[in-house]
Amino acid sequence: MRQVIECVPNISEGRRSEVVSEAATAVEGVSGVRLLDVQSDKDHNRSVLTLAGDAAALGEAIVGLFEVATARIDLRTHEGGHPRLGAVDVVPFVPIEGVGLPECVALAREVGERVAERFGIPVFLYEEAASAPHRRNLEDVRRGQFEGLAEKMKDPLWAPDFGPSGPHPSAGAAVFGARMPLIAYNVNLGTSDIEVAKRIAKAIRHSSGGYRYAKAMGVMLDERRIAQVSINMTDFKKTPLHRVFETVRSEAERYGVPVVGSEVVGLVPSEALFDAAAHSLRLEGFTPAQVLENKIRETE
Amino acid sequence: MRQVIECVPNISEGRRSEVVSEAATAVEGVSGVRLLDVQSDKDHNRSVLTLAGDAAALGEAIVGLFEVATARIDLRTHEGGHPRLGAVDVVPFVPIEGVGLPECVALAREVGERVAERFGIPVFLYEEAASAPHRRNLEDVRRGQFEGLAEKMKDPLWAPDFGPSGPHPSAGAAVFGARMPLIAYNVNLGTSDIEVAKRIAKAIRHSSGGYRYAKAMGVMLDERRIAQVSINMTDFKKTPLHRVFETVRSEAERYGVPVVGSEVVGLVPSEALFDAAAHSLRLEGFTPAQVLENKIRETE
Repeated sequence: MRQVIECVPNISEGRRSEVVSEAATAVEGVSGVRLLDVQSDKDHNRSVLTLAGDAAALGEAIVGLFEVATARIDLRTHEGGHPRLGAVDVVPFVPIEGVGLPECVALAREVGERVAERFGIPVFLYEEAASAPHRRNLEDVRRGQFEGLAEKMKDPLWAPDFGPSGPHPSAGAAVFGARMPLIAYNVNLGTSDIEVAKRIAKAIRHSSGGYRYAKAMGVMLDERRIAQVSINMTDFKKTPLHRVFETVRSEAERYGVPVVGSEVVGLVPSEALFDAAAHSLRLEGFTPAQVLENKIRETE
Repeated sequence: MRQVIECVPNISEGRRSEVVSEAATAVEGVSGVRLLDVQSDKDHNRSVLTLAGDAAALGEAIVGLFEVATARIDLRTHEGGHPRLGAVDVVPFVPIEGVGLPECVALAREVGERVAERFGIPVFLYEEAASAPHRRNLEDVRRGQFEGLAEKMKDPLWAPDFGPSGPHPSAGAAVFGARMPLIAYNVNLGTSDIEVAKRIAKAIRHSSGGYRYAKAMGVMLDERRIAQVSINMTDFKKTPLHRVFETVRSEAERYGVPVVGSEVVGLVPSEALFDAAAHSLRLEGFTPAQVLENKIRETE
């Protein structure tokens, strides 16, 4: 079976389109890497690249990306609304096909070390790749931002996993990690009362006692005049879509409110939908190997 | 978007493994064709090959298959439990990705005509490719088998769509067509009373007033001592899995019988499962373009 890993590097440049396109060219030029998407945000002064490929090809592409970003981005003069530590700020690897989180953790470590040595940039590992619990959360690693980094790194708790003990003068530091694919999943309620959506969000999200891999908030869809439970699913294998949907439905029922629909924003891994189908059809012993398209791809 | 068509030729040889492997080699040798599966049945003296590829490559492969089958199989001495008209008996084309039934109908006509001219074999079109309603059903086209073919073809109702007006002496005739992927889908009931399964099968199948694209019968799973509704779904886009499942469930309820599970036997197109997921999650505006793996493949 072939291996597909997704990599979603964030670089601290969202305004100079020529720099973003140089970065895109560098990763696209690596054989075995596909550039799926580039999104730049001028306010954040930040761009998100979405790549897919095998481990070796992605390693090459990320080194090429650091080459461009280190040469062209200077954090000492960088301004933008989004917190950041470095020129290439964060590099998460995401298992898609034929690989799991452990392979992505290994890849984050390997490429992080390579980048640290080659460019003299300190590298922190986060999420599944973290070397200690206090370093799991990206917000904690990034707290203090580039401007506070030299001071922060004096604390042994914040020694880097690879590379020099202080920041790179212009490129700062980089954060490498591995995580499951995110699914942005919203459930629409047949009410204009946002309080109902907020209460349901509270019931399902991890931070207030709900599902381990769900973040949620209640929002108002002004155009449709309905309230929505807006959810981020951070590990659909452990907290599946259908379970969250059913809980939203039963919590809504308590207020006499129907679920009128749901939506996936952006992309969703096929397995998340297969799981929902297997659940509702009560499929016994189903595996993705039974999917016709998977069988066809296996032989390619 | 790339095009993937499945083709499932049946040849009248299931005993001489060297002939089957010659046939497999002929189709595998065509660039752009993948041989997904070969299943030979000695009692039926018949083999089913499953190929995938684009239209042009499959056309080449089928011509190569006729080359081998016409040289190596003689219907005058062929014996087997399965009805058959020819050396290559039936050639259905099935839309999988980036194509629909109309393209498969066109392909069946085109390759059928090519084979008829090149090998002097009469070709009949069936299912979606049929040139008249009485020729849609494969069983009707095949009735009388190879032995009755010369007589049958004297009737103008059974003039071939392409090729000579009588059978090829040793290779008989071939039946080309286009159809949707079949899904073998079974629903297991929490009862050992096969009568309940038979009544539910009758309620859902087309032939007795049920869904247009469902065939069904009640069977007994001796090992598990439960009754099963065994279903063939012949067009999952028009008669979706989840609708049939729900109807089985509500019919079973009338007898106080629960649905304990269901199963897909063999392969299932991803879209059939996406549809079931979208139904149970009440997804709004979902399209397969939102599936991560599809997005990745698009860029390949």
